This record gives sequence, structure tokens and C-alpha cells, in this order.
Amino acid sequence: MDYVFSNRFAALQPSIIREILKASSGQNVIPFSAGNPAVETFPAQAIRSFTQTILEENPVAALQYGITEGYEPLRQVLKKQLQESHNAGRESDELIIVSGAQQGIELACKVLCNEGDAIICESPSFIGSLNSFRSAGARLVGVPMEPDGLNIEQLEHALKTEKNVKLLYLIPSFQNPTGITTSLEKRKAIYELARKYGVLILEDNPYGELRFKGEDIPTIKSLDDEGLVIYVGSFSKILSPGLRLGFVLAPSEVVQKMVVAKQGEDVHTAMLPQLLAYKFMTEYDYEGHIKLIREVYRRKSELMINSLEQYMDSSITFTHPDGGLFLWCDLPADRPMLEYCKQAAAKGVAVVPGTAFLIDTQEPCNSFRLNYSTPSDEQIVEGIKILGTV
Amino acid sequence: MDYVFSNRFAALQPSIIREILKASSGQNVIPFSAGNPAVETFPAQAIRSFTQTILEENPVAALQYGITEGYEPLRQVLKKQLQESHNAGRESDELIIVSGAQQGIELACKVLCNEGDAIICESPSFIGSLNSFRSAGARLVGVPMEPDGLNIEQLEHALKTEKNVKLLYLIPSFQNPTGITTSLEKRKAIYELARKYGVLILEDNPYGELRFKGEDIPTIKSLDDEGLVIYVGSFSKILSPGLRLGFVLAPSEVVQKMVVAKQGEDVHTAMLPQLLAYKFMTEYDYEGHIKLIREVYRRKSELMINSLEQYMDSSITFTHPDGGLFLWCDLPADRPMLEYCKQAAAKGVAVVPGTAFLIDTQEPCNSFRLNYSTPSDEQIVEGIKILGTV
Repeated sequence: MDYVFSNRFAALQPSIIREILKASSGQNVIPFSAGNPAVETFPAQAIRSFTQTILEENPVAALQYGITEGYEPLRQVLKKQLQESHNAGRESDELIIVSGAQQGIELACKVLCNEGDAIICESPSFIGSLNSFRSAGARLVGVPMEPDGLNIEQLEHALKTEKNVKLLYLIPSFQNPTGITTSLEKRKAIYELARKYGVLILEDNPYGELRFKGEDIPTIKSLDDEGLVIYVGSFSKILSPGLRLGFVLAPSEVVQKMVVAKQGEDVHTAMLPQLLAYKFMTEYDYEGHIKLIREVYRRKSELMINSLEQYMDSSITFTHPDGGLFLWCDLPADRPMLEYCKQAAAKGVAVVPGTAFLIDTQEPCNSFRLNYSTPSDEQIVEGIKILGTV
Repeated sequence: MDYVFSNRFAALQPSIIREILKASSGQNVIPFSAGNPAVETFPAQAIRSFTQTILEENPVAALQYGITEGYEPLRQVLKKQLQESHNAGRESDELIIVSGAQQGIELACKVLCNEGDAIICESPSFIGSLNSFRSAGARLVGVPMEPDGLNIEQLEHALKTEKNVKLLYLIPSFQNPTGITTSLEKRKAIYELARKYGVLILEDNPYGELRFKGEDIPTIKSLDDEGLVIYVGSFSKILSPGLRLGFVLAPSEVVQKMVVAKQGEDVHTAMLPQLLAYKFMTEYDYEGHIKLIREVYRRKSELMINSLEQYMDSSITFTHPDGGLFLWCDLPADRPMLEYCKQAAAKGVAVVPGTAFLIDTQEPCNSFRLNYSTPSDEQIVEGIKILGTV
């Protein structure tokens, strides 16, 4: 049998980058290439005891079918928290629980974009979202990142000149892969441009709670009086990624379409994770737990930065994130980045070539991404030492 | 802000049927319209104790990110079980865990169908799948159901005359909504036609284990030496639907594309349900549990059939399913079905108008669907009594 796939999926090929990653995914490899939260941030004991209580007190709610919109008490407490802590959400907004933030991003694209429609993205940006957009047939338009967020002039140029722009996809806080946080000034400018050109913003904020330095900056959603922002949040970094739990706060009309789209995908998000998240938010020391996570990542990021300063050639520069899980290194222009990553892998240290995150993967790129949440403290020091010898 | 949705989602309108269902979804309504498994079939105690063990012994596996293909031990045990108990799966097949069977169906459509491509379906068929296909822009072609499965001549006619047929979607056992089981003879004929016309079969088998009468009939997948069948299974009716857990056994090439598509949707299925299902399949009296579920549905279906015979006018005919959760009633041709359903709802009994399940919802229809798994035994007797007075 010759299998003929849909146009969008027939074209997808395994990438060189994936091959590099595969080659460096062995047992003894130091995983700077990963994106997993640190295991010690999972409130495993609380999860165990909450799960027990749920399955004793309310097994039917945990085991029976639920509604597509999500577990009502969890939706209520999330809406309240977003409003009170972040001033996010107006009368005209609604909230839907999704099976991880990735699903929120995919649903937004699905209900808004026809094949060939444009999505403007930060370049570089999160590969998971980019690939999801690509497989939906969207046309990606990249706007370069600067130390305080994307280049505003180029954003306006893209909004002015590109046809059928349906979404502006942003990770304003502790961006994956660069670790960059968009300044408040730029957030306001971006919101104004979106309003001016009538384009919706897809604000992806999985790391928002993971600030370990500096002052909080309001989300773009908190500025949203006009119903322009689709805000996607996640429990992956504050509770557990294995639960696959996220949420979308967006204009009701958009959420209604997402409900229909989600119904056709997985009917609803698994109930046990939803009931668990509700208990976590209402019966656990949520604030204390966030503090603990921030402390873990503050320590790990400092350790990596100190090691980079100590062991790497000073011609190699890197970002100093205020939160999140990643930092971004630039090699000098004359050093071949892919070759560098291959040699690092050969010496047992896995990093992700920056090319993976570009909108146009043919563009020249001399950067790579480092993750400090997955490796142990010892691996961080040892791995950076090795990178210094490559 | 005027929201402009993608063509596929802009066109979707709330249906009259949904409105009828909403009107009859109150507290005191007898839910013959539902499709929920009976609560007493959930092995709640075992789920509680397995969950506890998992979170004690292996919290990281349950809480950290997993791979898109699914939890490896669960995949292995499922492949083995499908091979040993059902002779399903060849060397060239692979298995992927999905977030409920619905996702398996949606992914199959996504990787195989372009907008406008045809999917041949039984008519009537499961509304969840039909709507998922529709929202993907597929063109649905219905082939009428007969007491032993779809009409083979009309199937061949459709295969011969329809352009770009990519899938043949079937629920061969205890079909939703009719309760009909496709005979072995027809299964073989359907497989031969699929081979002849080079079309893949999407075999949806959520109720396969729920036979409470007669002899098991081999799945179409068990006939599949040529790699033509995408087989979708579910844990919803044997373990719990709230866990959102299903699987797809299909030719490796198809599964590889599904992996890419799933990555862009929800990265992977929640881990705790997967670990739980693995324990359920390896450390629980799986066979005994299936027997218990069959017994529950045998009793409930008999109770409903006996009540129908006792209280309904003999001009109303109905199917006698050998398993599953549903039966299908036909009103005499001169009785207006929608009016009947509305009056039933007004008297506190919710049934689903047959129109909901048709491929062409404009076609005349004098049938409605009854579910016997959700209502209590008392509700079954009481509800049918009321229907008899409508």
C-alpha cells in the first residue's frame, strides 16, 4: 500500500536538528538541550494526597465524562486569580481548560487561520508552536528579537505589508528560546499596533510565574480592554507537565469556537488533573510553592551564568534571563555553530542549535540554546566546563 | 472588535438538535440522550490504590513530560494484547497512545485528508466523529445501515464514483447510534472493497469489549494483512472516560505522521492515566472486570427492551443490540419524529433525534437513539413508560 498523506503532512520531513538531538539523547549526555522543569519543583507529596482525597470523596467527577469547557470550579478559581493577581480578563472574556498550553495555541490557530494566512512571530521562537502553525498550513512571518522584545519598526512593517495576518504570536516573559523579557513599553506599543491593524495577539505565558529577578511586568492581556488578546497559561511549570493542563483566557466569541474545535479533538481535558489543579490552587500554599520554584531556578541560572563566565571564551556572549528556563548563547560570527553543537554532542553535552527556533530556518544563525532546569547542579558546572573546551 | 474565523469554523452553527438536548438536560430529566458509561462499572477502588502506588513508587514518570508515542510499557502490553486476543497488528503496524479515541479519529483525518476530500461513513454514525471530520473540511458520503452493517452495493458505488475518497469510517461492533453489529461476511466484503479501491479503513471500536450476547466477531483489523486498517480503541468504556485515554494501531507510516500531528496538538497524553491503564492491564483482574461490565449492560439493555415491549405501541420498532450502550427506535412513517422528541423532553425524558447522526442532516428521519448505560434501572422503566404515553 502506498500511503498518500494530506498535503500539510506529506511535506513534513525529519529535520537535521532533530537528528542532532537524537544523537545527543543518550544516557550519559548532559541535557542542556531539554526543556523539562526540575523534578524537585513537583509537589509530589501534595499531588499524592490530593489525588487520594479526590478519588475517595468524588470518584465520579474524576472518572466520568466532563464538559469541553473544563471543570467549572477550576475555571472559576482561575478567572478570579487572573483578575485579582494580573488584572487580566474583562466581562467579554471567557476561559477554557485545555490539555496543555500547546493545545491552546493550536486551537487558536485552527479557529482563526485558513491555509496560507500569516502569523507574525518573534524570531527565534518556541519550536513547538512554530511546528504546530506550520502543520496547520499557516505562513510564518518572523520579526527579529532585541534585548527588550521584538523590533517594533519591523513589526509595524510586517503588519502593514503582509496579507491576511491573523495572529501575532508572542512569549513576552522569559521567552523560549532566548530568555528575553519584553519591556512594558514594547508591550504597550505591540498592543497599540495590534489594535491599529486589527490583529489578534496570542500571548503565550508558560513561564510567567517563574520570575527570580527584578520586578513583575504586566501581561499584555492586562492591557486588553478591546478584546484583542488570547492569553494562554500552563500548569506545566508550576505543578507538573505530565498532567497536560493549561488554559486560555480570551474573548468569549473566540473561546466558543475553541470549544467546538476541542470537542472534535479530545472532547475534554482529563478530569483528574483538573480536580488536582483545583485543590492545588485552593488548598495548597500556592504562593509558597511558587517562591520555592523561583528559588530553584534562580540558583540554577546563577550557577550556569557563573560557570559560563568562568569557563567560556569571552567572545561567546549570552543572555541573562530574569526568569524561566533558558538562556541563549551567541558564538562569534566566524565560528560555525552547527559544527560547534556537533562537537559538543560528541563530548557528551547536548545543546539545541539556534536554527531550530528560526522562522526561516535557512537564515544564518550563530546561536544555541541552553537549559538549566533539567540538568543537576553538578551537570551544569561539568557541562559548561566541557563546552568551554569545544 | 469583529472576529473573523477560519472558513471551517466560521460556518459552524449551533444545531437545532443541540438546542433540544440543552432543553432536556435539567436535573430531573431521565437521560436516555446521554452516552456515559454506567458509574458502577468504574473500578474506582483499584484506580485509587494504583494511583497511590504510582505516585509513591514512580512520581517522576507520572509527573514529568513523556514522549508523544505514549508510555512505552503500556504500548507494549496493548500491542501484545491486541495480537494475542484479537490477532490484530502485523510487523508493519505501530501503536500510539492518544487522549481518547476521539483524538485518534481526528488525527487520522488530519494526516490523510485535504479539505474537500471524501470520507465514506455509515449513515447514521457517531456525531462526534462526523463533526470532527466536518470541521476538518472533509466531504462526508453516507452509506445506509442495514441490520447486518452497511449496504455493500452502495458502498461499492460510492467507492467507484466519489472523488478523492481517503477514508472509510466504520464502527463495526454495537454501532453508535444504532447498536448494529456488522456481520463477519460484510466485514470481509468491506475489507476486500477497500483493498480493491485502495482506500484506508478507519475502524472505531470503543465498545468492542462490551458484548453481552452472542459470539465475538473478529475485528476488521484482524483481517488486515495489507496495511489498510487504522484501528482505534478506547479505555473510556472499560476503565473510565474521564481519564481521556485511547490508542491507535495502524501501519507504521500512518502512525509516524500521527505522532507529528499529535505533537502539535497536546505534545503527549497525560501520564498518570497511562501509568494507571498499564497497572490496570497487568495487575488487575482485567477479564473479570470486563465480565462484570458486560453483566451490567446485559441487565440494563434487557430491562430497556422489556420495558419497550411492555409500554410502547407495537408500531414502534427498535434494534436488539448484542453489546454496547445504545439502541435505535423507528417511529411509524406518519409520526413526526422531532415533534415526538420535543414532547418527550417536555415530559422529562431526553432522547436524541436520529437526524443528529445522519450524514445529510436534511434527509427525512423517523428514528431516535436511546441509551441504557447512563440512567438508573428505575429511570429506565419510568422513562420508557413515559415515552409510551407520548
